[in-house]
Amino acid sequence: MREVAILGVAMTKFGNSEKTNIEMFAEAGLGAIKNSNIEAKDLEALFFGNCLGTFEEGQMHMAPFAHSVLGMPMSSPATRFEGACATATVAIRHASLLVGAGVYDMVIAGGAERTTAMGTPLATRTFAMGCHAQYESPLGITFPGVFGMAAHMYAKKYNIPLKELKRNMAEVAVKNHFHGAKNPKAHFQKEITVEKVLSGGMVADPLQLLDCCPFSDGSAAVVITSADKAKQLVDKPIYIAGTGQASAGPLYLQQDLTRVKAREISIKKAYKQAGIAPKDVDLCELHDCFTIAEILALESMGFYEFGKAYDSAAKGETRLGGKMIVNPSGGLKAKGHPIGATGAAQVTEVVEQLRGESGSRQVEGAKIGVVDTLGGDYGTVCNIILRS
Amino acid sequence: MREVAILGVAMTKFGNSEKTNIEMFAEAGLGAIKNSNIEAKDLEALFFGNCLGTFEEGQMHMAPFAHSVLGMPMSSPATRFEGACATATVAIRHASLLVGAGVYDMVIAGGAERTTAMGTPLATRTFAMGCHAQYESPLGITFPGVFGMAAHMYAKKYNIPLKELKRNMAEVAVKNHFHGAKNPKAHFQKEITVEKVLSGGMVADPLQLLDCCPFSDGSAAVVITSADKAKQLVDKPIYIAGTGQASAGPLYLQQDLTRVKAREISIKKAYKQAGIAPKDVDLCELHDCFTIAEILALESMGFYEFGKAYDSAAKGETRLGGKMIVNPSGGLKAKGHPIGATGAAQVTEVVEQLRGESGSRQVEGAKIGVVDTLGGDYGTVCNIILRS
Repeated sequence: MREVAILGVAMTKFGNSEKTNIEMFAEAGLGAIKNSNIEAKDLEALFFGNCLGTFEEGQMHMAPFAHSVLGMPMSSPATRFEGACATATVAIRHASLLVGAGVYDMVIAGGAERTTAMGTPLATRTFAMGCHAQYESPLGITFPGVFGMAAHMYAKKYNIPLKELKRNMAEVAVKNHFHGAKNPKAHFQKEITVEKVLSGGMVADPLQLLDCCPFSDGSAAVVITSADKAKQLVDKPIYIAGTGQASAGPLYLQQDLTRVKAREISIKKAYKQAGIAPKDVDLCELHDCFTIAEILALESMGFYEFGKAYDSAAKGETRLGGKMIVNPSGGLKAKGHPIGATGAAQVTEVVEQLRGESGSRQVEGAKIGVVDTLGGDYGTVCNIILRS
Repeated sequence: MREVAILGVAMTKFGNSEKTNIEMFAEAGLGAIKNSNIEAKDLEALFFGNCLGTFEEGQMHMAPFAHSVLGMPMSSPATRFEGACATATVAIRHASLLVGAGVYDMVIAGGAERTTAMGTPLATRTFAMGCHAQYESPLGITFPGVFGMAAHMYAKKYNIPLKELKRNMAEVAVKNHFHGAKNPKAHFQKEITVEKVLSGGMVADPLQLLDCCPFSDGSAAVVITSADKAKQLVDKPIYIAGTGQASAGPLYLQQDLTRVKAREISIKKAYKQAGIAPKDVDLCELHDCFTIAEILALESMGFYEFGKAYDSAAKGETRLGGKMIVNPSGGLKAKGHPIGATGAAQVTEVVEQLRGESGSRQVEGAKIGVVDTLGGDYGTVCNIILRS
């Protein structure tokens, strides 16, 4: 396998949009093409992510339509990928594997999702289609419910009073909003306080409103090529040092909700391929769909021992200026979470950070960044390790 | 790229099923594993196809659940692919590319779809989500409408009286039902007559009921490995000699509905990789979603000159015993069309034919077979060439 690099990236502002998925992808995709100093005719394939297009806008088969708005050649195939919230990360991983293998020389990967037009009640129900429809959905479970249970189990397992855990979870939200306030593409660009989090409406005990990421519209895209070609085309190619993907099946197969087993397997594979250890990582964009989810991810990725990450945000360790910066973009929590685009936006943030282009939220001297995306209730995890 | 082979195949009976997509895939997937003389733990990845799971059964994120019912290891990632009716073919092509590249040594690919529980009116509308939701669907277009227009244009372009074209289209249906009657897995296992086709209810002029494939439930799966490994494990590995995939965008970009441009590009690439010409092909499983679609496919694939395939079935050239057998399984028309599974069922048929296991519908001495699947209204085409 030859070395693979990211040439260019782009994303729309995340938030509320009047555009269709394909219109949003046109903005992100054409932006990534421009950022790469190439033209659409240079692209040999599209790896496109979208989760709920049939519900959002009556659109199946979105990939060839996303392909056509970029002006790509008919001979460059467009393929749709779906892995719930990990959708775009999975698409990028497959693009990277096929460029690494020499099947393609230059491709574009990304995703788009449109969730706000459905309204929160319907969006919550459609997102919950990522749970097992036969064994979980009939019980009325939704994702806030799953992560609410995980928070209770975490508190119990590690003997942390729930009130203390909740305060520390709130610190995760405060930290990610602090970062998001510095990101002009973020859905929420204002800071919040612990008190505000703790006074929010209850969503799924112990998760309150501001413990939860929003429903967002948005799109992001990245152009991938061989390392050799990238060096000719841009000043600062960012290399894909390792990837991982693992599948854990439905919730009823998970033995411990405080451990995301698929993540432990996926990230181990990615670290091994990259030849690095968790201590080598400068920044991480990880899957903070709920505040507790960031804590679980930090432990499963090896940045903290199990039971020890809960106060990472409170201590300032994961905030800009801390020892390992987590979600400098604002994360799903503040940047937003258009599910089929999320992984591509995470990659976009890490690429821009490693290039030193992140302005007031720049992680100084960042050389290695990790992307982590969780799909569904623990079913899919996909990781990508990037280096400058 | 190393040579790649298909180790084993299996499919459910196509038709009406009470099972969920995942339950149907369990039958096909475990069947393919058994047919391959391997165990689920040997599989390193799942490439899973499904189109409309959210509408059919409220299920997004189906891949990791399909993965878990096979008993695959958590470290073997499951990924969902969607390319409308070409879904499973696209999944198999990507599986083949990654095994060829050495990323994986042994994988399973396939798909499942459940359409009959929706009932025909809703199924017609959900299938039509494969058309462009912004520019085509608001006009009320459905797939029978698209292919009805194509039939009119074909008649006009080649100066064939519509009545004569219709009679020849009916012969395609008669031929595929003749084949389907010999296939115990087919949705329809009885022969029909030209008169019966021509007396059916009008669906979308000039397409009558029996010009159209049915809505079916079903699943199919194939196990893919390296040629070297396949030779150690089974007596008759079938080799993937070439693949192609192309994307043509929405209907409004098609310049001529009698020419499926994406197919012309895709199949050319596959022929080149396989080092063969159309004349070398012994049998073909192609996308006869409507009778006119078989005629268009035969021309775009190079088996007939443009304007010359319309009477291929009437002349007996594509029937068992003819010069190049088309859809010996019964095709989408008689075997059925559970869209996310169709490509995998086409591969299953060709593999069994090349192994000489097809009983009363065996194509004698078959050595090279081609799979052709069209997704949406000309948007995606994927081809796979197999040889014994």
